[in-house]
Amino acid sequence: MFCDIDTLRLIELKFYHYLMTDPFFAPKGVAIIGASQDAHKLGHGVLRNLIQYRYKGGIYPVNRKAYEILDKPCYSSVSEVPDPVDLAIIVVPARAVAGSLQECGERGIGHVVIVTGGFSETGEEGKELENELMEIANSYGIKIIGPNCIGTIDTHTPVNTTFVVGMPEPGEIGFISHSGAMVAAIIDWASGSGIGFSRIVSLGNQIDVNETDMIRSIAEDPNTKVITGYIEGVADGLKFMEQARITAREKPFLMLKGGKGESGAKAVASHTGALAGSSEAFKTAFKHCGIQEAETIEEMFEWARAMAWQPLPKGNRVAVLTNAGGPAILAVDALEKQGLHIASLSEDTRSFLKKRLPKAASINNPVDVLAGSGPGTYTLALEALLSDDNVDSVVVIQAPQDWFLPVSLAEVVGEVAWSHDKTVITSIMGKASVGDALKILQKRRIPNVAFPERSASVLSAMIERRNWLKSVERESGSALKVNADEADQAVEESDWKKLLELYGVNFPEEFMAKTIDEAVDYSNKIEGGVAIKLVSDDISHKSDIGGVVLGVETDEEVRAAWTKIESAVKAYDGSMKGVIVQEMVTNTPEVITGFVRDDQFGPMVLFGSGGTDVELYKDVEMGIAPLSETAASELMKRTRIHKKLTGWRQFPESDIKSVIGVLQALGQIAIDYPQIKELEINPLSVLPKTEGSRALDVRGSLK
Amino acid sequence: MFCDIDTLRLIELKFYHYLMTDPFFAPKGVAIIGASQDAHKLGHGVLRNLIQYRYKGGIYPVNRKAYEILDKPCYSSVSEVPDPVDLAIIVVPARAVAGSLQECGERGIGHVVIVTGGFSETGEEGKELENELMEIANSYGIKIIGPNCIGTIDTHTPVNTTFVVGMPEPGEIGFISHSGAMVAAIIDWASGSGIGFSRIVSLGNQIDVNETDMIRSIAEDPNTKVITGYIEGVADGLKFMEQARITAREKPFLMLKGGKGESGAKAVASHTGALAGSSEAFKTAFKHCGIQEAETIEEMFEWARAMAWQPLPKGNRVAVLTNAGGPAILAVDALEKQGLHIASLSEDTRSFLKKRLPKAASINNPVDVLAGSGPGTYTLALEALLSDDNVDSVVVIQAPQDWFLPVSLAEVVGEVAWSHDKTVITSIMGKASVGDALKILQKRRIPNVAFPERSASVLSAMIERRNWLKSVERESGSALKVNADEADQAVEESDWKKLLELYGVNFPEEFMAKTIDEAVDYSNKIEGGVAIKLVSDDISHKSDIGGVVLGVETDEEVRAAWTKIESAVKAYDGSMKGVIVQEMVTNTPEVITGFVRDDQFGPMVLFGSGGTDVELYKDVEMGIAPLSETAASELMKRTRIHKKLTGWRQFPESDIKSVIGVLQALGQIAIDYPQIKELEINPLSVLPKTEGSRALDVRGSLK
Repeated sequence: MFCDIDTLRLIELKFYHYLMTDPFFAPKGVAIIGASQDAHKLGHGVLRNLIQYRYKGGIYPVNRKAYEILDKPCYSSVSEVPDPVDLAIIVVPARAVAGSLQECGERGIGHVVIVTGGFSETGEEGKELENELMEIANSYGIKIIGPNCIGTIDTHTPVNTTFVVGMPEPGEIGFISHSGAMVAAIIDWASGSGIGFSRIVSLGNQIDVNETDMIRSIAEDPNTKVITGYIEGVADGLKFMEQARITAREKPFLMLKGGKGESGAKAVASHTGALAGSSEAFKTAFKHCGIQEAETIEEMFEWARAMAWQPLPKGNRVAVLTNAGGPAILAVDALEKQGLHIASLSEDTRSFLKKRLPKAASINNPVDVLAGSGPGTYTLALEALLSDDNVDSVVVIQAPQDWFLPVSLAEVVGEVAWSHDKTVITSIMGKASVGDALKILQKRRIPNVAFPERSASVLSAMIERRNWLKSVERESGSALKVNADEADQAVEESDWKKLLELYGVNFPEEFMAKTIDEAVDYSNKIEGGVAIKLVSDDISHKSDIGGVVLGVETDEEVRAAWTKIESAVKAYDGSMKGVIVQEMVTNTPEVITGFVRDDQFGPMVLFGSGGTDVELYKDVEMGIAPLSETAASELMKRTRIHKKLTGWRQFPESDIKSVIGVLQALGQIAIDYPQIKELEINPLSVLPKTEGSRALDVRGSLK
Repeated sequence: MFCDIDTLRLIELKFYHYLMTDPFFAPKGVAIIGASQDAHKLGHGVLRNLIQYRYKGGIYPVNRKAYEILDKPCYSSVSEVPDPVDLAIIVVPARAVAGSLQECGERGIGHVVIVTGGFSETGEEGKELENELMEIANSYGIKIIGPNCIGTIDTHTPVNTTFVVGMPEPGEIGFISHSGAMVAAIIDWASGSGIGFSRIVSLGNQIDVNETDMIRSIAEDPNTKVITGYIEGVADGLKFMEQARITAREKPFLMLKGGKGESGAKAVASHTGALAGSSEAFKTAFKHCGIQEAETIEEMFEWARAMAWQPLPKGNRVAVLTNAGGPAILAVDALEKQGLHIASLSEDTRSFLKKRLPKAASINNPVDVLAGSGPGTYTLALEALLSDDNVDSVVVIQAPQDWFLPVSLAEVVGEVAWSHDKTVITSIMGKASVGDALKILQKRRIPNVAFPERSASVLSAMIERRNWLKSVERESGSALKVNADEADQAVEESDWKKLLELYGVNFPEEFMAKTIDEAVDYSNKIEGGVAIKLVSDDISHKSDIGGVVLGVETDEEVRAAWTKIESAVKAYDGSMKGVIVQEMVTNTPEVITGFVRDDQFGPMVLFGSGGTDVELYKDVEMGIAPLSETAASELMKRTRIHKKLTGWRQFPESDIKSVIGVLQALGQIAIDYPQIKELEINPLSVLPKTEGSRALDVRGSLK
């Protein structure tokens, strides 16, 4: 494997982070400017959290009016704070923040969290205050998180610079948030849930450090196994994608996107434009980067926990082990709905199960050990399932029963699961009676879902990640070689057909015939039937006046068509320069493809079912330009029309390779010519395998 | 309003239930046959639950070897048990069940729950034992629940005939289950969750009482406000629909369906057949009956609780009230995704909010009172929102904060919400810090969701119910009058075109022309272009040999077409009887419609996007035959193609009324002719408004 640009960038970033640890998460000493004696003030909460959650470095409250707070001696100015100190938390009123920041600069403190609110979120005046802060920060080289944020947490350092009551359990999940309230809610919700965190950061108004800056800092943290985030937008789409894509190759990267922000009023000239809204752009960018988008907070953390704790499944064949029928049925329904397969057990497994399970037990998948079986039977069955080559993952369900303690099941599942390299998820059902069992599962790193049907979403997210990693490995570059001068000229003239032809896109074969005999000659050069179309300077709606004749086959028909068109032109009092004799492409699948430019993420190539009903069915997907062959192929596979192209009902297998070429050409044009706003081929007729494709209509516009 | 058949049936059922209370849920005395002294046996658990959960009637353990169990005197036979006793729970070994049942019959006990397992679920032998039980039951008129079940619970009586540890809190939700494990899991999970139950029943092997029998019993219970269920199938689809439809008009009816049971191997001759799988049939039947299908257990009970506690929203305009931006954004995203509208607040509301909320607060929907506001501000804002005519429901979000106690917010929301007749849902976020607040919300009957985005699924389910109730009200019958003799004959001859024409379905106008002059004459009778198609006894693939000419307009073109066909026939050495001159229908939306018969639910009419790609896009929906005008219209509205029919892009508004007529005709044919297995029109071309529709192709088959 050659060392691609992503890998080089990764090595560079790793080296950079090796040289410096991040004082936002592992400070050597912390000054709290605005520490307060009043237990109801935020400046008190920050100090309290640093002490209470056992930060081990120096803690220096700055307050000129107090002698000591919470047994810590106070300093009247940050300039008096002793070494080492590399992080300051500012909690003074908005008008006093600039002064405090100035003092930090003078004291040589390079990292500052500004908790104080009342800046740009309140209007123009606040925005000016922020500008002032950035001027000071730039002159001293200070990095700022905030203002209007709740700060940072690292559970392993440990350090908690927030004022929020509670500290999450140490764990493997990093969380980046554009919403402070979301951080507070998640800390409260996660306590006692078995979801542990490594680093948490609330970014506030992001005058300096933004979500993109934070990605690498969190990713480089060895305690973080999975990166999660709640974001409402990105500061710079291209930088975000660059960082995110590198990061997702190393660690699972999950995201909850808030705020759709559809610019509904935007005038769009093409199908492609109409279909490519802002939320689709985010989806496309996320997919490109390997970021997995969750629908709800719970879903995101359920995925994160499983990815942090369990190996990714090697395939999508799932075995279900249960002591009750109903819950297993619900699990199987949900798994199948997510596209997972219920594994066919091997003959060995089945005969072993037949021998060891109760007579009435079901030895087919789902394996039902029945209500009377205990942890011993579960152990034997689980071992057999995990040893079966036809099984990639196992969901272990226990419906409430009075026969044995759920803790015993948790222990044996934990033990047996880790002697194999396969994914195991449990659903020890209930709440009141299973608290102890859940604690053991946490210890053994077995994710448990409260209801068995939720295992499907978790396993499917894990498989999606595995498939993305595989597709990234396969990717190879594409570099189309094109006559640049001719292409430049085509763009200048908005001659989209010419441009696309230069990039290898095929149009129907056609000739301009000036006489009836030329028309006959040309029609014989084209295989199959042809269309004869009037060429005239003064008649625009040619088909309305009978200037177009389709499905012309024999020489006689060509002549008849010419004559018919000629008399139609006469009847209309128009002039006739001749006719176009054009290859007819009928009864082939039609697709749409094109590119648009997203304000944030740049050019995106769209592909999907073509024709006039495109917007009705919305069977389209997008990818970030330029597209590698693999990326173009994966993009196509996400649509329904792909099924048709692979050979479906009356349609033979289509020339998919040719379509991939067209998609790559469009991606390359988008990169080569930033002045093209959008370009669309609809329909692109896809001929049978090896016969290529034909662009039947194309439209585009310059910026 | 006239008194329809559903209403009459309802009155009859109500009267029936008025005469007798159900001893399964309100027995006068209970005998436990097989009560055991051994605390590990089920027969002990049943007795323990009856005593522990305070059943107030007589509790009579039957055990010939014991003197007393749990301080209750034992009887050596059920014949010795004193009056009153109208329910027996049998927990003896399988082989002894028949004898015990016989004794119950002799003692005059009319209701029996058989907990014992080891019957048909274990094989043929068990099935025979069940037959024996039913013979005894029939001879004494005993009603049986089970065997292999865990019995019944009524929290209001109270009575708990199960052996499962735990008793749900009294509440308004009834639950019918085909899985005992699911009942046990839900009892365990619900304890402390604020979800209360009225009646619960586990049905086991259903040798007698089945899910359909239970629907009315649960529905008639005045304590039950919402009916929920987990079912894996239905005993009799038509009876089930009859009971369910009546019931859903009175009370919300929610269902979780386990087991897809797709009969994948079934050979199908039509698109309609291929699209109408068993799970689609259940979905269709549920929709017809007003049963709302949930995807997960949690979702079902979250819906149930909201419907039990809150009024249904009068429309889909939602206001969101919050103290933090991020969570509100997530709620808004989810609400919009579910098709709900974010209400535009009235000028009055906005100016009130502007006056009373903090300066930086957002007074547009979502209304953000900001982190510093307390229950007082929430009160003022909630009152304003609930008083706004533009608002149908309010979601109140509270992100964790340290300023005020969440209990106070719970109290004021409870108070203000009930002074209006609008739907209020809260999302007091977090877990560790909000336990007390949640208890108050339960008391005040305000449903709370742990994360704000979940309010969307709840509100949307409530609105779906309201819309179903409205659509049922609007329904009116349809009775097509058809010449029965002619129709009978058409069916006998499988002349589907004739049959459909008799039921008012239109086909393209066409004439059989035997000479070239006739062809010209006929073509002049038809408006617009025509198709000329060869009629021949010995040529089958007419279009392949050039026997079909499309788009023929002038007399000359008709003659040319005749000549062309004539020479093609000659070249092929075939014979020519003449041609069909047929109306051409082009460039109009094409739909598919037809009916199939589901084994369980009878005939179902299908409608959707037509053509050859039907199965690719699967834009189809089904309805139970026969269809009222309203039902046909609602069915159409659920598809994407409906948008096109209402006038979309180049298409003018189509003749939707004509399509409704075709759907009703198909539904009526399905009822009138049970011997027709399936019938399909694809495509049906829909002409512009008032111009009707044309069936271009039809296929059908007899059973």
